[in-house]
Amino acid sequence: MTEAIHVFGNPSSMHAFGREARALVENARANVAGLINALPEEVIFVGSGSEGNNTVLSILSCPSEHCTCDRRRGPNGIVTTRIEHPCILETSKCLKGRGIPVVLVGVDGLGKVQMDELDNALNDGVGILSVMMANNEIGTIQDIKAIAARAHAKGILVHTDAVQATGKIPVDVRDLDVDFLTVSAHKIYGPKGIGALYVRRGTTFCPLVRGGHQERGRRAGTENTLGIVGFGKAAELRTRDLAEEMPRLRALREALRQGIEERIPDVHFNGHPIDCVPNTLNVSFDGAEGESILLYLDLEGIAVSTGSACASGSLDPSHVLLATGLPVERAHGSIRMSLGRDNSEADVDYVLDTLPGIIRRIRDMSTAYRRRTP
Amino acid sequence: MTEAIHVFGNPSSMHAFGREARALVENARANVAGLINALPEEVIFVGSGSEGNNTVLSILSCPSEHCTCDRRRGPNGIVTTRIEHPCILETSKCLKGRGIPVVLVGVDGLGKVQMDELDNALNDGVGILSVMMANNEIGTIQDIKAIAARAHAKGILVHTDAVQATGKIPVDVRDLDVDFLTVSAHKIYGPKGIGALYVRRGTTFCPLVRGGHQERGRRAGTENTLGIVGFGKAAELRTRDLAEEMPRLRALREALRQGIEERIPDVHFNGHPIDCVPNTLNVSFDGAEGESILLYLDLEGIAVSTGSACASGSLDPSHVLLATGLPVERAHGSIRMSLGRDNSEADVDYVLDTLPGIIRRIRDMSTAYRRRTP
Repeated sequence: MTEAIHVFGNPSSMHAFGREARALVENARANVAGLINALPEEVIFVGSGSEGNNTVLSILSCPSEHCTCDRRRGPNGIVTTRIEHPCILETSKCLKGRGIPVVLVGVDGLGKVQMDELDNALNDGVGILSVMMANNEIGTIQDIKAIAARAHAKGILVHTDAVQATGKIPVDVRDLDVDFLTVSAHKIYGPKGIGALYVRRGTTFCPLVRGGHQERGRRAGTENTLGIVGFGKAAELRTRDLAEEMPRLRALREALRQGIEERIPDVHFNGHPIDCVPNTLNVSFDGAEGESILLYLDLEGIAVSTGSACASGSLDPSHVLLATGLPVERAHGSIRMSLGRDNSEADVDYVLDTLPGIIRRIRDMSTAYRRRTP
Repeated sequence: MTEAIHVFGNPSSMHAFGREARALVENARANVAGLINALPEEVIFVGSGSEGNNTVLSILSCPSEHCTCDRRRGPNGIVTTRIEHPCILETSKCLKGRGIPVVLVGVDGLGKVQMDELDNALNDGVGILSVMMANNEIGTIQDIKAIAARAHAKGILVHTDAVQATGKIPVDVRDLDVDFLTVSAHKIYGPKGIGALYVRRGTTFCPLVRGGHQERGRRAGTENTLGIVGFGKAAELRTRDLAEEMPRLRALREALRQGIEERIPDVHFNGHPIDCVPNTLNVSFDGAEGESILLYLDLEGIAVSTGSACASGSLDPSHVLLATGLPVERAHGSIRMSLGRDNSEADVDYVLDTLPGIIRRIRDMSTAYRRRTP
């Protein structure tokens, strides 16, 4: 990061300081494009995956002839799924109230999109379909290529939120054949507060933040130079390391899963056992609240999540787990463990040594659980 | 910055890593609040001044009962001025096309808002007034306190874009009595790509980026931890140094102005001679294009701007200078010089030694100018 910290210039200024910053930003753009097999000019830097997703959903809702955008006139309906990130679901809800038709498609017990429901939803009034590539809570991977083909056959634009997939599995915008795709730097060990939106060359667009020539007029505001350079470096490293990391993480995750299954009774794994990002394990423990498990594990130096960090502070059970048909009490008893670059077998062993005692202690306090298990 | 670089956690996560990041973010929020005399909970971190400004203008345009916002039902018209930053003007134009009434108020020859025009514009259909505190191109400062009082007397919300004012002159949200105020970190030597929006406690609000509990549900997306911490540090230093820097910069600027006036014929200074941020000098040279001056100065290691960096690449003359009544050719012949923390008298002397020769050279190539001066 040292080189960027010394860059003072505004990348949109014409003088030498500005041009130096510009070169760093464009180098980073090429690296991020490389990670997803896009052209550099198809990559727009945004402030987060959430901003990228909000932007995509808002494109077709711009009815203004005064706007600088080039949105396509035509159907503006949105089809998405019940397990999307809240930034897709809440934006859809708000747009629905602004008169945009919105349909949410369901998923099966493993978190896979119900294809017959999807086909029914993709009708004439639909302008865009948004389906996340890998779920952030349960890790289930959708067959975006097949889904995109169905939408394109009906002339519908396709977006995928690949925030959770990128850096965990190969993501190739050409192979997937999507029109928009969102990624986030901090999910691939880059800085927080920077993301990117892929927009296929020639695709209709309307900015969410207007009024500046930055990012070819597609996202106004002075560029987050530091964040962008960090993102570029992270993308470069991830492109290099992904093929090696995937099997390593999958082996660790499977050891974790097997160890939990062997040592703790009454556990249930959520999400798809095979079509799943290699690093995520979502598990429910009967008679134990996810939040209690989180707090006990935290005392032992183990960081896990309940639901997503974006929904922290919410006491509602995970909408993703409920959408897979999990009963409310089991959804409440779930935690999500994520393995990463810095984790090793020793970490898995430490969790497997620590977790059973914690679950036992919590269950001992649960009258409902004790009643069940004599 | 070292402490933040080592913070890995997501400030919205509940585990220890998350809480550590949260503490840094909240400390930064207190420092930014301190710079503008706001309460910490009145400060929302955003990705840029442009995003802050876009957010404010969009608040009253949300007509959705499905939205999570708490916008006030009532008039939704926008009044702003002809010399605002493009992020206000373009957003206003787009919203106009979505059915929101928009009125642009003019300015006088020195860039001051025409108060009679303003009074006429503030009618029953207006929901929000947005006037920038100091102009980014000519530096003219508006009397926001008086302007806010006129709007509030009619029940209209008041926003000021204080991106250019903050860190150059005292900015006090209580004294100004505004409802919204925008600031940007890189204008006070913080990182690029991070800004803040002040929202007075209890004021109606609707997020631009939806779908996450971050920033109390007012701006979704994982926090730009690095940017926020840098912003906080910059705000802390600026709060400490402002009183000393203002007279120092004003003296340098006046030396620059006087030197240019003495050494170069046919120059015109733009903006208000007294109500002006202390560091900005906008000057027109007859018979010389701003862009040529910029390029020649750049070769000598001097960085100046024509118009604003956000409008770079545009060949249109500055809308700000045109609004003050400057003829198109004089607007084309303008450059903006900004002095800062690292500038000294030696820099002013260097510019005064360099600039006259450059202007002479450019004018020698200009047939129009030579015809005028025998």
